[in-house]
Amino acid sequence: MQRSAPAPGPLLSIGIDIGGTKVAAGLVDRRGRILRTLRRDTPGHDAVQVEEVITELVQELSRGRWAVPVGIGAAGWMDLDGGTVLFSPHLAWRNEPLRERLEERLRRRVHVANDADAAAWAEWRFGAGRGEPRLVCVTLGTGIGGGMVNDGRLERGRHGVAGEFGHAIIVPGGHRCECGNRGCWEQYASGNALGRDARELAAAQSPMAREILQAVGGDPDRVTGALVTELALRGDAQCRELVADVGEWLGLGLANLAAALDPGTFVIGGGLSAAGDLLLEPAVRTFHRNLTGRGFRPAARIRLAELGPEAGLVGAADLARVAARRNPFRGRIPVRRGMLKPR
Amino acid sequence: MQRSAPAPGPLLSIGIDIGGTKVAAGLVDRRGRILRTLRRDTPGHDAVQVEEVITELVQELSRGRWAVPVGIGAAGWMDLDGGTVLFSPHLAWRNEPLRERLEERLRRRVHVANDADAAAWAEWRFGAGRGEPRLVCVTLGTGIGGGMVNDGRLERGRHGVAGEFGHAIIVPGGHRCECGNRGCWEQYASGNALGRDARELAAAQSPMAREILQAVGGDPDRVTGALVTELALRGDAQCRELVADVGEWLGLGLANLAAALDPGTFVIGGGLSAAGDLLLEPAVRTFHRNLTGRGFRPAARIRLAELGPEAGLVGAADLARVAARRNPFRGRIPVRRGMLKPR
Repeated sequence: MQRSAPAPGPLLSIGIDIGGTKVAAGLVDRRGRILRTLRRDTPGHDAVQVEEVITELVQELSRGRWAVPVGIGAAGWMDLDGGTVLFSPHLAWRNEPLRERLEERLRRRVHVANDADAAAWAEWRFGAGRGEPRLVCVTLGTGIGGGMVNDGRLERGRHGVAGEFGHAIIVPGGHRCECGNRGCWEQYASGNALGRDARELAAAQSPMAREILQAVGGDPDRVTGALVTELALRGDAQCRELVADVGEWLGLGLANLAAALDPGTFVIGGGLSAAGDLLLEPAVRTFHRNLTGRGFRPAARIRLAELGPEAGLVGAADLARVAARRNPFRGRIPVRRGMLKPR
Repeated sequence: MQRSAPAPGPLLSIGIDIGGTKVAAGLVDRRGRILRTLRRDTPGHDAVQVEEVITELVQELSRGRWAVPVGIGAAGWMDLDGGTVLFSPHLAWRNEPLRERLEERLRRRVHVANDADAAAWAEWRFGAGRGEPRLVCVTLGTGIGGGMVNDGRLERGRHGVAGEFGHAIIVPGGHRCECGNRGCWEQYASGNALGRDARELAAAQSPMAREILQAVGGDPDRVTGALVTELALRGDAQCRELVADVGEWLGLGLANLAAALDPGTFVIGGGLSAAGDLLLEPAVRTFHRNLTGRGFRPAARIRLAELGPEAGLVGAADLARVAARRNPFRGRIPVRRGMLKPR
């Protein structure tokens, strides 16, 4: 919930969103506003190189300021304590004590979070999920990211790896997933799913795919989910059907989540949510058609995310700010004279 | 978590488990031990008759004692406050202010809970889930009941209807479910699913079904999940296969729940859990085969419930005891002289 009176703690924090191709960093205030952003390419899979990029970005954003806390958001699993990256799909982090290494480098407090958790936190604090006591956030990108905020706390499960909604199997024996299983939800309701579906249509040389093929110079391999979304928004009927198909799978999976979790609000974010009502309308319809006990129970609201692609960055920054406020003297960083002075 | 020092609050409470055919009542102490039980047939669908049966049972169990609090466990959805039954499948309760009506009748504190929540609570307090900070309990009866205990509190969602794991759709377009959907998990991993599967086999006059048909005098319609479980435990190979099939669906659904919820422990209870390792071994194998990120994450333990068919009764009683302790002066009951005297 947004507070009317300013909350105590640091005024500013830095959020860093580490993606598969880009690292985005921003200086964020306590209202979730981004004061400045920077971007770099993700330097391959090497952990040390990633740490160097993070260091550069933090130094650049901190110039002339007090040592503000830093929040990292990355695809992958952090342990419950938030100090260790158990696994990251894009990066070579395996049981990496990322927080400690970054705190040593940066000489300030660092908080490490899963990127979908960070996005969910941002939507709960500043976006479409404000004030919701049981929020489920679904981020539709190449896959599906998930985050839950219960009573103002991220719900991360027993080991810190909860919220992998995209890997619930909803079609046993279905499409192969990167996770090694078949039939995972994200193989049916994600940007990748939309791209795959459109590529199949294009490769079949269906007359329905005329506009899609024109847009990629006749090469089905160049079709992506982002392209289909763009063509759908421009009015192409076939692309709208493809987006609606994905929307129906989205609605089915949301009904499954509602059966188990009974949230008050679902927030739908990520790149694919740019399709807006073209995605949401079929999702809401299919959700209500498949919600167990419909008619005898209150149903969750389904809303589009409000913070856009910066949600992960904003959430990572705010989580770092909140962690610094909650526990200002964690004492992990050796205190030296001058470390809190502006650089 | 079990406490070493006695907890404050009433020493005893009464738990009542309202099933589709039987009402079971028990006097339960603060260690979860049942001192005395009573049983009645469930009197049809009429709400007033059910209240009368509850009243009789409570009076019988209370004779000569202080007015101990009463906990009700029933299939159905209670609102978050616990006062109103939104919906119950077996009984004619629709938006029924059950707690208030029973408190007026019984002149004492009443707590109303979903039966699967009550069972989960009992297993967390006294059974196989003791001390687990993220417990998911799956009760396999005619359908699938679900309950979650997070940090020592029942997690009931935004409206009180969380935990309906059995109605997550895992086979789109699959078997018809009583809830009105198709392909719900409980159509594949429950006592009903086991019975249906065996009836199909028997109706097909498969030579594999010889023992099953012998046990029901050649009438496939008389085959039930309980019978198949019994024959499997006695060693019938075909019935063991049928139980194992259900176990595999169980494991798949548990992997889905682990992806979303990341519990530390799953506890498997309900009538079908009587099959023991015949059910659990294939469930555990399929769980580990389908757990997303296996090898890169800690996996939940899967344990059989310890409290047996009385879990719901014990849990309902303990929830009532805890509620009375937390809020001893709720003031819903008009206090009259003598109401706390032994009757």
